[in-house]
Amino acid sequence: MLTLYGCLRSRASRNAWLLHEAGLDFRHVPVIQAYRLADPEAPDAPLHTRSPDFLAVNPNGHIPSLVDDGLVLHESLAINLYLARRHGGALGPADAAEDGLMGMWSLWAATEVEPHSIEILYNRVGKPPAERDAAKAEAAVAALRNPVAVLDRALAESSFLVGGRFTVADINVAEVMRYALPAPELFTDAPRVKAWMEACHARPAFRRMMADREREPA
Amino acid sequence: MLTLYGCLRSRASRNAWLLHEAGLDFRHVPVIQAYRLADPEAPDAPLHTRSPDFLAVNPNGHIPSLVDDGLVLHESLAINLYLARRHGGALGPADAAEDGLMGMWSLWAATEVEPHSIEILYNRVGKPPAERDAAKAEAAVAALRNPVAVLDRALAESSFLVGGRFTVADINVAEVMRYALPAPELFTDAPRVKAWMEACHARPAFRRMMADREREPA
Repeated sequence: MLTLYGCLRSRASRNAWLLHEAGLDFRHVPVIQAYRLADPEAPDAPLHTRSPDFLAVNPNGHIPSLVDDGLVLHESLAINLYLARRHGGALGPADAAEDGLMGMWSLWAATEVEPHSIEILYNRVGKPPAERDAAKAEAAVAALRNPVAVLDRALAESSFLVGGRFTVADINVAEVMRYALPAPELFTDAPRVKAWMEACHARPAFRRMMADREREPA
Repeated sequence: MLTLYGCLRSRASRNAWLLHEAGLDFRHVPVIQAYRLADPEAPDAPLHTRSPDFLAVNPNGHIPSLVDDGLVLHESLAINLYLARRHGGALGPADAAEDGLMGMWSLWAATEVEPHSIEILYNRVGKPPAERDAAKAEAAVAALRNPVAVLDRALAESSFLVGGRFTVADINVAEVMRYALPAPELFTDAPRVKAWMEACHARPAFRRMMADREREPA
């Protein structure tokens, strides 16, 4: 029995997408970020990241978490690597070399891309207009130029990142790079990244996740 | 044949430590960070992260990278997960659950700890005194309080992070947390983290790596 904790307007989107790709049944507990609630202490507040019931699952107080038959895992990208390896068939590695490359791309997304892509998201669309910092978004765009070029070159060799087929590496990198889409100027010189993102987002499993996400409270 | 690129005064220290733990022979190419050189373009400059010869190995221009019999990997934590799984014996996972937990702790180190621990290192000891920002170091200490508490609680259940034995998860987390040691106030309420770090740093493989590191140019 698989249980995914975390609303889909969070990094849990990555896990829901992969679970749909793998055709896995799961229970979804839509824990919300505490900072999004006006009064997290209110008796009718929904389950959130500072609720004692959720902190008992993940003491980090962050979403998502996954429980698989008693095994508790946090960190969205690690959860996807685990799910792909254990339950994901061809989404996971065929051998140790592929496993290494899937881990590399996932850590690359976390360290080379996400600190910048999240600033683009926050400062171009996420925050209320008065709180956005245009200079921070610009700095993030500048910092992402080389990572986007690296990704574009990798996609020149194959339409997918590892093993010549769609895998967890594509999901993990595409989900982190999605936060940079409010900076379209990043992708004009990276036609392969653009085409790859569009192909990722045309997949039925991604569209199903996004449709579920749209139905969640804003 | 294993080749590790990157001087030991960099995240390559993590990989050298694991390679020694596993008793693996490797060729070490001490690529240096370009920003540490007064003139990276000088004809007698050592091999560095912007040298064309190194960019041909890692177009990200960052160290470390590893080459294992033709397989090229970047990202220090991913390199260690790969080495442990493929060549590391008991340092690596015994099953998919352990593999998932080792990945989780490594991503946890990268996302919950390193963005803050590196600020402590830079702003308390790394930068020249006039360039240090005490407020940034303070903010990083505050941000690490909960991650350190989470780690301390995890170590209450076992002296090691995964599987009741010393593994790649301990190396990856200890190396990221090492950057926070210039903030000893973080560890006074986390006695298990303190004892675990001391045990990690007493290991012969860690000491061998640190001795090699001390012999590198400052």
